[in-house]
Parts: sequence; C-alpha cells; structure tokens
Amino acid sequence: MVRKSMLKPTLFATVFILLAVYAFFNTFIYPIDSSSKSFSILSTDFPRNPLNVSPVKVYMYDLPRKFTYGVIEHYMMARGSSLKVPVHDVSVLRVSDPDEADLFYVPFFSSLSLVVNPIRPAGGIGSEGPVYSDEETQEELIEWLEGQEYWRRNNGWDHVFICQDPNALYKVIDRVKNGVLLVSDFGRLRADQASLVKDLILPYSHRINSYNGEVGVENRNSLLFFMGNRYRKEGGKIRDLLFQVLENEEDVVIKHGAQSRESRRMATQGMHSSKFCLHPAGDTPSACRLFDAIVSLCVPVIVSDRIELPFEDAIDYRKIAIFVDSTSAVNPGFLVSMLRTVTTEKILEYQQELKLVKHYFEYEDPNGTVNEIWRQVSQKLPLIKLMINRDKRLVKRDLPEPDCACICSNQTGIINTL
Amino acid sequence: MVRKSMLKPTLFATVFILLAVYAFFNTFIYPIDSSSKSFSILSTDFPRNPLNVSPVKVYMYDLPRKFTYGVIEHYMMARGSSLKVPVHDVSVLRVSDPDEADLFYVPFFSSLSLVVNPIRPAGGIGSEGPVYSDEETQEELIEWLEGQEYWRRNNGWDHVFICQDPNALYKVIDRVKNGVLLVSDFGRLRADQASLVKDLILPYSHRINSYNGEVGVENRNSLLFFMGNRYRKEGGKIRDLLFQVLENEEDVVIKHGAQSRESRRMATQGMHSSKFCLHPAGDTPSACRLFDAIVSLCVPVIVSDRIELPFEDAIDYRKIAIFVDSTSAVNPGFLVSMLRTVTTEKILEYQQELKLVKHYFEYEDPNGTVNEIWRQVSQKLPLIKLMINRDKRLVKRDLPEPDCACICSNQTGIINTL
Repeated sequence: MVRKSMLKPTLFATVFILLAVYAFFNTFIYPIDSSSKSFSILSTDFPRNPLNVSPVKVYMYDLPRKFTYGVIEHYMMARGSSLKVPVHDVSVLRVSDPDEADLFYVPFFSSLSLVVNPIRPAGGIGSEGPVYSDEETQEELIEWLEGQEYWRRNNGWDHVFICQDPNALYKVIDRVKNGVLLVSDFGRLRADQASLVKDLILPYSHRINSYNGEVGVENRNSLLFFMGNRYRKEGGKIRDLLFQVLENEEDVVIKHGAQSRESRRMATQGMHSSKFCLHPAGDTPSACRLFDAIVSLCVPVIVSDRIELPFEDAIDYRKIAIFVDSTSAVNPGFLVSMLRTVTTEKILEYQQELKLVKHYFEYEDPNGTVNEIWRQVSQKLPLIKLMINRDKRLVKRDLPEPDCACICSNQTGIINTL
Repeated sequence: MVRKSMLKPTLFATVFILLAVYAFFNTFIYPIDSSSKSFSILSTDFPRNPLNVSPVKVYMYDLPRKFTYGVIEHYMMARGSSLKVPVHDVSVLRVSDPDEADLFYVPFFSSLSLVVNPIRPAGGIGSEGPVYSDEETQEELIEWLEGQEYWRRNNGWDHVFICQDPNALYKVIDRVKNGVLLVSDFGRLRADQASLVKDLILPYSHRINSYNGEVGVENRNSLLFFMGNRYRKEGGKIRDLLFQVLENEEDVVIKHGAQSRESRRMATQGMHSSKFCLHPAGDTPSACRLFDAIVSLCVPVIVSDRIELPFEDAIDYRKIAIFVDSTSAVNPGFLVSMLRTVTTEKILEYQQELKLVKHYFEYEDPNGTVNEIWRQVSQKLPLIKLMINRDKRLVKRDLPEPDCACICSNQTGIINTL
C-alpha cells in the first residue's frame, strides 16, 4: 500500500520546513578553527564559566543528491514550480569532521518525497527517468545509512530526522526510531516509536499572512471563525459535530472549504477579523490552522484532546489559547456561551501573549522556528548520550517488561482552561 | 513498620552528601544584581550569544530547623560526634526570591533522618525531648510543603529532593514523586515513582582514601579484590555464589568483613594493591564500593545486572570498568580466566581513564560531584517545564493506559564488556 502525504493542503508549509532546516545548515558559517568565534563567546577570559557550556556540535551528512535536491527536482518536474529558502543564524555549531560531532543530521526530504510520490504520473511532464517512488527512496536511504560508520556506532541514537508529515518515513520508521524524530504529532506513531522525551514536535509553517496590526477587538467582529474540511477521519470526526452545533450561531463563521488560493484569501480575512479561531483535530491531532490563528492574533480554541504542542517548555499555551475537551465542545450552546463570557480585557491579554510568542512560529525569523528547533534538539543531548553509553554496557537480563525510563502526566484532566 | 537506613555501613558517605549539597547552597554567593558576574560571564559584548544560555535559578527553601540542622542535633546527641562540610562553586544560581526561581530545592536531611531514627533510644544520652521519629518527620515535611504556594503551584514538578538512602522518604515517596529525586538506584522505587528521565543517580561518597600514585601495575599484585558482607538480600544473594567460585583462587583476595576502622584500613590497602576490584550488587543494585574502586584506580568489575550509574551522559563506564552478567560471573572459572587475559596495556588504559573521571566522585573537589549534580539537575529543566505547562492544559480524555513519554533501551544485552 502506497501512503499519501497527509499534508497536501499544506504542501508549501511542509516543504518549506524541510528546506528551511536544510538551508540553514548549508549557509551558516563553520568555525575557522577551535579558537573561532563560535567557541570563544563561551570560553572568555573570566576566571570561571559556571555552566561549562559549549555549543552542541552537529554534523550534516552529505547525503546523495537523490535524497535532497533530487527530490525537489522530481517535485518541480511534476509541478513546474520553484521553492525559496531562508537563511539563518543558529544555536548549534556545524562541524565538518564527523568525529567532532555530537549529533548527526540526516537531511532527507522525507515529507516532500511523500508529496512527489503520488502525483508523478508515468511519462508525465518532463519525465525521462523512471517513476519516482517514495517507498523505494526510503528503503534506499536506510541502505545508505546502514553503510555509515557513525550510524552503526551508536545504533542511531544521535541521528536527527525530519518527518513532519504524519506519513513521512512510515515504511522505515522502526529502523530510524532510535533517532530524534522531528514530527507534527504522535497520531500515527506508537509509544515505542516516538515520545516527548526523545523527539520534538514541530510547528507547521503558517499558510496565511501574519496580522501585523496592534492588539484590539475593534476590527474583529465575529466571535469564532473556522474554515476547513468538515469531514475528516479519526479524531477529525468531531468536525462534523462542531459544524452542527455552530453553523446556526449568528456571530460564528464556520465554512466547509478545500485548499485554494481563494479560500486562503478568505481564511486570512476571516482569521484577521475574528476574536477566536476554532482548531479542531484533523485526521491526526495537529494541523497548521493553529499556527495560522497564532500569527493572526486570533485566540485559538483548541478542541483536540490528544494534541501535542511545539516548544511547550518555552510556551505556556494556556496564556495564548483556550483548550476545551471534545465531549463538552459538542454540547449544543457550550462553546459559544463560554466564549461570550470572555471579557475584552481578557482577549487583549491573550493577544499580547500571542504577540510575544509569535516569533517561535516564523520560520523566516532569524530568532524564529529554525533556531528554536535546534536549541530544543540540543537540549536532548544529555539524555541521548546517557542512552548511548548505557545501552552499550547493559548485560543480559531477564526483564518482565521493556526497559524504559518514563515521565508521566498527572492525568488530572480539565474541561476547559478558561 | 519502621524502616532502617540501608546505609549504616556508609553512614558518613550519605550524611556527607546531604551536608555537602546543603552547605554549597548556604555558602555560595548570591548575585548582587542582574548585571552581576554570574550573569555577565554569559552576556558578553560579543554580538551574539549563540546559545542564549542563562544559569538555571534555584531557590532553596528556608526549611524549619527540625528538617535540617535539627536532624543533625539529634544525630550528634545520640552519637556524640560532629560533622564537617565542604564549600563549593556551582553551576546554578541561587536566588532569594522564589518568584525568580526555576527550581526549588527542599533541603530535608532525609537519609540522616533515617539514620537517627533507629538508634535513638528513649531517654538516651543527652535526651530531653521526645524520641526522634523519621516517619513523623517525613509526614511533617509533607504537611509543611503542602502549605507552600510554590509547591502547590506546579504540583511539585520543579522541586528537588535528595533521598540517597534507598529507604529515605519511603513513607511519603508517592507524594513527592513528581519532583526530581536524587537517588542511589531505583532498587526500591517503582517505574512510576522514579526514572532516568526525571531523576538523577548520585554517587556515594567514597569511604576509603584516594590512590594518589601514578598508573601502573607494579604494586598491584593481586588480580581481584573484594571485601564486604558475604550475605545480602535480593540482588546481593549473588555474593555468596561469587565467594564460592573465587575464594580458592590464589591471586584473588575475597574477604567477608563488616564495617570498622580496621576493615576500612584493610580495604584501602587491598584496593590500592589489586588490578581489579569486584563490585557485586548489595541489597539494591548500587553500593559505595564502586566509588572506592574508582578513586583507588582499581578497575571495577561490576556484577550487578540492574545497576544504574551516576552521570552516565558524561562518563562512558565501559572505559573505566568491566561489566559481567550475573549468570556468567558465577560460572566456576569464568571471571578469573577472563580477567587473566587482560593485558597490562589495557589495564593502564582503564587506569588512565579512571584518573580522568575521578573528580566526578570527589565531593570535596570544587569541580567535583556537587557541581556535577547541579549541572545535571539543570539539564532536566526543559522537560520539567514542558510537563508543568502540558499538565495544566490537558483536557479530559479516556486513556487505555497512563499518559507517559518514555525512552527505552535496545535490550540487546551482552555477556561482558571486555
């Protein structure tokens, strides 16, 4: 069975992220030598550096072209479009000698590969070679990786993969699961494949334009806005129920709409002129709409019980969004009467906070998403190193269950965060 | 049932650790203001600090005296002895305003409390008040904590406790388990109470003197040395089996011995004059003997299948020790014939590595254990913050199992690491 990209509506979002992270690595400056600026910032003449911090060193594989720009070429051949990438400063240090590296970045364009796959017809426009196959490319990547000394050395623990599309790398996920996976959510991943401890939740790149005006409710006449597919699978089944309880409320704008230039224009206009923006689950718990709402300063109302959120150590989402449990949200009248009780003062507070954290969701901001991704990856290094060292000295044991170290939530569970 | 300290043989070790960590906090200098040295080291005049690092800020509770020095007074009344504490530089910043703190240190002398408990007779020497009760003191601590706004605020996730003795805090462990627990091992703790992700393994303070000579085997005439209790519970049952297979080997020194000044002198002499030092499990997987071996430059031979090791992200223990699985180790002839194959060159390599990491196990070294403990605790901060934020916004869900994020070992399991 060939899987399709979950992200077709947000193609540019996912492609953009792959390219942004790849490009940053291809453009930022190597240290000239070990006494270079990147190091000397931390090893000053002060008598003591109380943190003994040095930047995490990352090696990016010089992956065969077919796994990187080759995928783009296939994409462009089929679509006839081009892609732009931003340039960044970063919170890690790229090294050219893999022996110096703490982490290894495998820059396979996994989500893009999934996108290219199903739309590339045999003998399509500009086609001369064989038909592109995402599955085969995934298998070839593993074959290539297993030939790498640094991959074998630590069983892949210190390798970083972007697989933002919930179906990206699906065919080989069990063979790369030791690595740090950069994902959108854990909707399609088992607990033994990915977790908040080992992996990282990425934000989607927002599709609509940021709202650059001031905080305020004067030009935000609708209470609640949603535009998107009414019918989705799995967690997204709630959407139809939400349509039913909301579509007759007069200050609510809720529209079924597919992806198009025109609907993006309408969504921009709608999100910039509503106080709250609904974010129901899609087929998986995450969706780019949340990030569209954030950059629109439209307070997100999140109805997605299993959602995981990017950078949640740095962002307290209760300050920028309202969480409502699914069961309550589909009760007729519940959502709107709750939202109508929110004072203008409180909405302005949410908007102020949204402004403060907005940069985390701007892939083009030098102090934005890409920098934060690498900062977060580097924070995982101590645990990665511990697992590498520990795994190699563990002797044979009879264990009644897998040998896992966990951190568990309190499971207290609230109805809503208002 | 009143539990006793597991650590009576190593009383000074555990007391020393409690005091060392407490004292460092009471002696190191607060920043004068936000532009003080501790900060300015990191915010230099360089155009960009690539890591945006600022030291983790820790608030130490001004705990009622009965939980700290009060425990020492009870100890000294019963024992008539006194205690000395070292002074340290550190990798975190103590703050006096709890609102500024990232973490909260609860300096209850938990292991010492356990030690005082069973030996304090009613109406004993110097006694005037009621009999000391560790259990009651634990309950009182929780009562006191639950009155603290900062404890309630984040459900205790950001609080740090030392409970090195496997029985320390046992009565209230389920009420402090959200916190970062500094422990010796997980022998008496369930997976939902403590883990490598949330908590920290501490080294015991070594009891015998460090070997300050050079690397070499000239003065190390015995192959393998062990001195300690032949009969222990649980994992320690292996000791008797090891005695049986080793006691007739001519180049092995293996002695049953209880704790005394004389046996400490003999152990020092034995560890300083043996190539390898056996480290079998005790009642729980850890024991101070490992750290005695390390500071003696006597290559540890670890036969403790469930052992967890301090600072394993920073230390690759395969470079300083040999791990052997229990089943193989008790095979007659296996251990000695394996150790006899180790070349002098390889032993010198182990010794060189031991010298390099020795400072991690020296509580009195300014660049030693205490500093490393706080550095490691501060590395846990991002995950702690994530859990705090996430817990507060999680809505009601029906979950088939607890909501945990885990990292799991490969469970490949080797026979030995030689």
